[in-house]
Amino acid sequence: MRSVPTKPRIATVIGDPAGIGPEVCVKALATGAPQSRSIPILIGNIDAIVDAARICRVDLPLRPVEPARVAELGDTDRIAVIDPGNLRSDEYTVGEPSGPAARAGVEWIRLAQELAAAGAIAGFIMGPMNHKALALGGIAREFSEVPEFEPPGTWQLRINGPLRAVPLTEHVRLRDVPQTVTREAVLRLIMTVDEHLRRWGIAHPRIAVAGLNPHAMFEEDAERIAPAVADARGRGIDASGPISPDAVFRQGLEGRSDAIVTMYHDQGQIAVKTAAFAGACTVFLNLPYVRMGIPHGTAYDIAGTGKAQHLTMLSAMNIAAALASGRGFADAAERN
Amino acid sequence: MRSVPTKPRIATVIGDPAGIGPEVCVKALATGAPQSRSIPILIGNIDAIVDAARICRVDLPLRPVEPARVAELGDTDRIAVIDPGNLRSDEYTVGEPSGPAARAGVEWIRLAQELAAAGAIAGFIMGPMNHKALALGGIAREFSEVPEFEPPGTWQLRINGPLRAVPLTEHVRLRDVPQTVTREAVLRLIMTVDEHLRRWGIAHPRIAVAGLNPHAMFEEDAERIAPAVADARGRGIDASGPISPDAVFRQGLEGRSDAIVTMYHDQGQIAVKTAAFAGACTVFLNLPYVRMGIPHGTAYDIAGTGKAQHLTMLSAMNIAAALASGRGFADAAERN
Repeated sequence: MRSVPTKPRIATVIGDPAGIGPEVCVKALATGAPQSRSIPILIGNIDAIVDAARICRVDLPLRPVEPARVAELGDTDRIAVIDPGNLRSDEYTVGEPSGPAARAGVEWIRLAQELAAAGAIAGFIMGPMNHKALALGGIAREFSEVPEFEPPGTWQLRINGPLRAVPLTEHVRLRDVPQTVTREAVLRLIMTVDEHLRRWGIAHPRIAVAGLNPHAMFEEDAERIAPAVADARGRGIDASGPISPDAVFRQGLEGRSDAIVTMYHDQGQIAVKTAAFAGACTVFLNLPYVRMGIPHGTAYDIAGTGKAQHLTMLSAMNIAAALASGRGFADAAERN
Repeated sequence: MRSVPTKPRIATVIGDPAGIGPEVCVKALATGAPQSRSIPILIGNIDAIVDAARICRVDLPLRPVEPARVAELGDTDRIAVIDPGNLRSDEYTVGEPSGPAARAGVEWIRLAQELAAAGAIAGFIMGPMNHKALALGGIAREFSEVPEFEPPGTWQLRINGPLRAVPLTEHVRLRDVPQTVTREAVLRLIMTVDEHLRRWGIAHPRIAVAGLNPHAMFEEDAERIAPAVADARGRGIDASGPISPDAVFRQGLEGRSDAIVTMYHDQGQIAVKTAAFAGACTVFLNLPYVRMGIPHGTAYDIAGTGKAQHLTMLSAMNIAAALASGRGFADAAERN
């Protein structure tokens, strides 16, 4: 009989191997925390991971695993590594953007998506990539042009301590924002947030909905957002709003909501990034698995030195494990 | 020979006497900090101040002063009180909105404006008022309709610890915001901020200018804000931007600017109110004296109990004294 693991398998793509991705991965795993709540898997070239462990003076036993055998992976004291062998060590230099490294990184993300879609892993975290390297690799000039980075039809919930905010839209020009705020779109996002929070283990999610305008006191607030909140409440969702944009995040920090629906990118991002930065991460909504991102980049200038701060990656690994296990956010925060 | 006081005379209007205004005034003064750097003056009905001192168990020696004698006020160990006698104690009840109290409060603000305009005081702080009481008093339904509260042609710099942000506009509907962001308006505000910071004692002000759009990467950012920053730099002002709106406040918290120019109300207010709340206050730009406001209200529900938190008022009194003395913000923060 095969043993059924009770911990979720969570993969982490090391990101661009020329950046700090491999280092933050091994440092986060060296804390032992991700292993206590998940079966961690690294995806990337194993040489980069071994080098990072050496640079960071981390003793991290590894075991190579074939993608086809991931679904059988149980709990052991060695970190599983999937290396498809698509990048040679002489194709890039640590600290410098390179096309081959970026192309390999995108392929690793694609592999993680396939494993997650097939149910072999419960979720994955995307390590840092670099837009210059992507351009050198002929992939794209902007992250937003790479469907592997921002899957169409998803929303991104940003998490920073007790603050969790998801915008209706991402990089929309401010003058085009008001027309995207429709009763239907707001309701759809509230319902999606509610469904995900329940799936992640929050039995009775409280969803705060920000207004669009100062003090939530103009036409769009009353005629589009308020009816969407009423629609949601009619469906049994504990939604409230529209709440004044300059008050809703403070209330969130005080624990008065489980997630905040915001009307545009900067509305939530200003709050999330100003409240604190270390530890912030992102989880995508509208995917059948837990997919997370981290907000920092490849930091080529310090790559290879072992100086990179790993708390953001650690936070992402812990939150991914908690959500995939249905233990909510509080558990991840408590055990950080 | 008359002695010339070296400390600035700073008045504080107690606000609606039925609210917590008188209590936060006496508690702030009981710390002794405002007296160490200014000659404090209270404006309001003296009975309310005496009652507040009794409720808060504060021993605060007072001396009534006629408005015409304020310009001669020197340093003593008693707090000067200006009471024009325009409100009887039986015209209001502590904890309840009343028209007479609101009307008296507006008259006290007008008196403070007159004293400041005449140079008898170096500045003043406006205590908390209530919009229900204003409506009962037949004055207005919204604060923004009362010219005594938001003098035309002024901007409001919000201060919260190391975070200082001033929006180009106040309560403008989001869809109308982009058209207010012109090269001329942005330049005018940058110049105004620079001039005030110098006047307040910051010899080389560093002014960060936020973009309008996500990551400051759209048309308005490049074609209106960037040229305004270049214009300002051409005039010798140390302005930088447009900076990504979701990064500029974190940089401000880290001390990388002395003030942040924001493109709309919520952009800065979300950051200022999320970073922390206690101690936040506002200083008006484009007035020949230091005029400050505090963001909290009358809190009728706890008025008369002595429970009101006075740190915001204390912060406003200390900052007003520091700015009027040309000692900048850092001094006020250090000595808080």
